[in-house]
Amino acid sequence: MHKKTLFVIAITLSLLQLAGARQKESTDSEVKQVRAVLDEQVAAWNRGDLEAFMKGYWKSADLTFFSGGTMVSGWQETLDRYNKRYKSAGNEMGKLDFNDLKIEMLGPKAAFVRGRFHLKMSSGDQQGIFTLTFKKFGDGWRIIHDHTSTN
Amino acid sequence: MHKKTLFVIAITLSLLQLAGARQKESTDSEVKQVRAVLDEQVAAWNRGDLEAFMKGYWKSADLTFFSGGTMVSGWQETLDRYNKRYKSAGNEMGKLDFNDLKIEMLGPKAAFVRGRFHLKMSSGDQQGIFTLTFKKFGDGWRIIHDHTSTN
Repeated sequence: MHKKTLFVIAITLSLLQLAGARQKESTDSEVKQVRAVLDEQVAAWNRGDLEAFMKGYWKSADLTFFSGGTMVSGWQETLDRYNKRYKSAGNEMGKLDFNDLKIEMLGPKAAFVRGRFHLKMSSGDQQGIFTLTFKKFGDGWRIIHDHTSTN
Repeated sequence: MHKKTLFVIAITLSLLQLAGARQKESTDSEVKQVRAVLDEQVAAWNRGDLEAFMKGYWKSADLTFFSGGTMVSGWQETLDRYNKRYKSAGNEMGKLDFNDLKIEMLGPKAAFVRGRFHLKMSSGDQQGIFTLTFKKFGDGWRIIHDHTSTN
């Protein structure tokens, strides 16, 4: 082969490698951003700030929240559900933990998360598993769908 | 403006419009393919063919199936769960229906599906809701994660 051809091949391979590394870096960074949304949600919950917790969700009528056999549609309706369950008389928010988190990118602007939650409460702990679908918007990553279930 | 400039702008706009239409067509086609996998699953279930039903799932140890607080990992383990619940002595598969299906693309090779299932059985009907994460592989669309819950 000509030296020139070899040179072009070498340059091409280096560029491909660089592109691969860039993509990996960008995926890592997106995963970290999704993780940060979840960490902020846990921190907000644990200081009793439901409004801040709700910032992790897409503020849209198209947000969906599945729990047990029930479908809830809309950001406001999801907040109402949380308020009713954890903020109304006789209820408490408890201490929230997420475990076994698996964050997986599904495209440049979509990810899904699998995990377990544990809610330590004086009235008896709650725990269960969840699947979250995330989308990246202009102002960052938001949950567009939440499916939670318990035993 | 020069006639030539206007001509270039007109051509550019037409090309953008064409690209948009192409993308819409391609999304519609992917949604149809995902829908076809679900239709095949229902048909397989209703002829009692669990192996054919399982073709909708990614044949991998990384497939996950969440149901009512429980995490199952692996294609084989998911099949085992179905066999135990619907094929073992004293059990029946019943007649399956999916309703209120919402198929949404999350990228060129990922989609998620929300819906309800209804299982008509002589021993009493089962119903619930599900979230499916789909990925497009070389041989077509497959469910990589299933989260199902009931009341």
